[in-house]
Amino acid sequence: MTWETLSSRRVYENPWITVREDDVRRPDGTPGIYGVVEVRHPAVFVVPVTDAGEVVLVRQHRYTIGRESLEIPAGGTDGEDVLAAARRELVEETGYDAGDLRLLAEVYSLNGVSRAPGHVVLATGLTRVGAGGGLGDEGITAVEHLAWPTLFELLGAGEIHDGETAAALMYAAVALGRVR
Amino acid sequence: MTWETLSSRRVYENPWITVREDDVRRPDGTPGIYGVVEVRHPAVFVVPVTDAGEVVLVRQHRYTIGRESLEIPAGGTDGEDVLAAARRELVEETGYDAGDLRLLAEVYSLNGVSRAPGHVVLATGLTRVGAGGGLGDEGITAVEHLAWPTLFELLGAGEIHDGETAAALMYAAVALGRVR
Repeated sequence: MTWETLSSRRVYENPWITVREDDVRRPDGTPGIYGVVEVRHPAVFVVPVTDAGEVVLVRQHRYTIGRESLEIPAGGTDGEDVLAAARRELVEETGYDAGDLRLLAEVYSLNGVSRAPGHVVLATGLTRVGAGGGLGDEGITAVEHLAWPTLFELLGAGEIHDGETAAALMYAAVALGRVR
Repeated sequence: MTWETLSSRRVYENPWITVREDDVRRPDGTPGIYGVVEVRHPAVFVVPVTDAGEVVLVRQHRYTIGRESLEIPAGGTDGEDVLAAARRELVEETGYDAGDLRLLAEVYSLNGVSRAPGHVVLATGLTRVGAGGGLGDEGITAVEHLAWPTLFELLGAGEIHDGETAAALMYAAVALGRVR
């Protein structure tokens, strides 16, 4: 038995998300409703690693949670190609372009509530092409370079709070052989 | 400059989520709207590790994304204490109780769109107390035991798609000294 959709209606929409409420039959056969948040475009989560082996993160004020957050560069694809979007977000937010962009994984965020696909991209061969700091409308306050041992310390101390950042770092740590 | 809320109205609500649309002033001073999905209760993400060092995961059909997903046990706290919720989800979904539950980090999922806080909990000293498989209404089809090298292989092959699972495994790998 799996989920079955009996009916579906849109209850909210803005340029970035759609919310629908479905009448469903649950895997055990019981009826219910399911509110699903659909993100309009897939996201890209970029893990930029400098030639010195440091990861580039941005410090950003997040409206939704009302606090500052240390995160990898990320954003919506706006419907464009995944690697093109990754490069654009990387340049906008950090001021680095990448010689190499490598797709590591497709992830879904908050899948109990939402259909929010994202692509984790490893960016290497970095060269500085701008100032970074985002487009000004995103609340980025700093660009930081952190060595992996420092990142692991911050994770271990619970000082990185962004779920997608922790997830992307997991895929990148595996890809770079930093796990055992 | 940071975000400013000018007005706020609820646009959708069900027992699990609330969606509001705010009129905002963005960090660069421009006006806009922001749709925010609020999850009613914080989530718990449990990384259960057996005495043999294997991680216990569940295979589950996810309604939102229309596909099966290999995930750590997780769920809403239903307003209860975080560690009590972690224990309940662990027992329900895997059939294991834990001798030790350790809070590793607070994470926010999909924070571009939602206020969805969660707590990552490491569960050790596992003893079998039931069959697991969930409450029947969640679509869990299997409970799996995976050694860390196998988990890292699956992550490296992009075969784990749940963002919160990858994030929780990152915190757990750091806590257990499985990074370098």
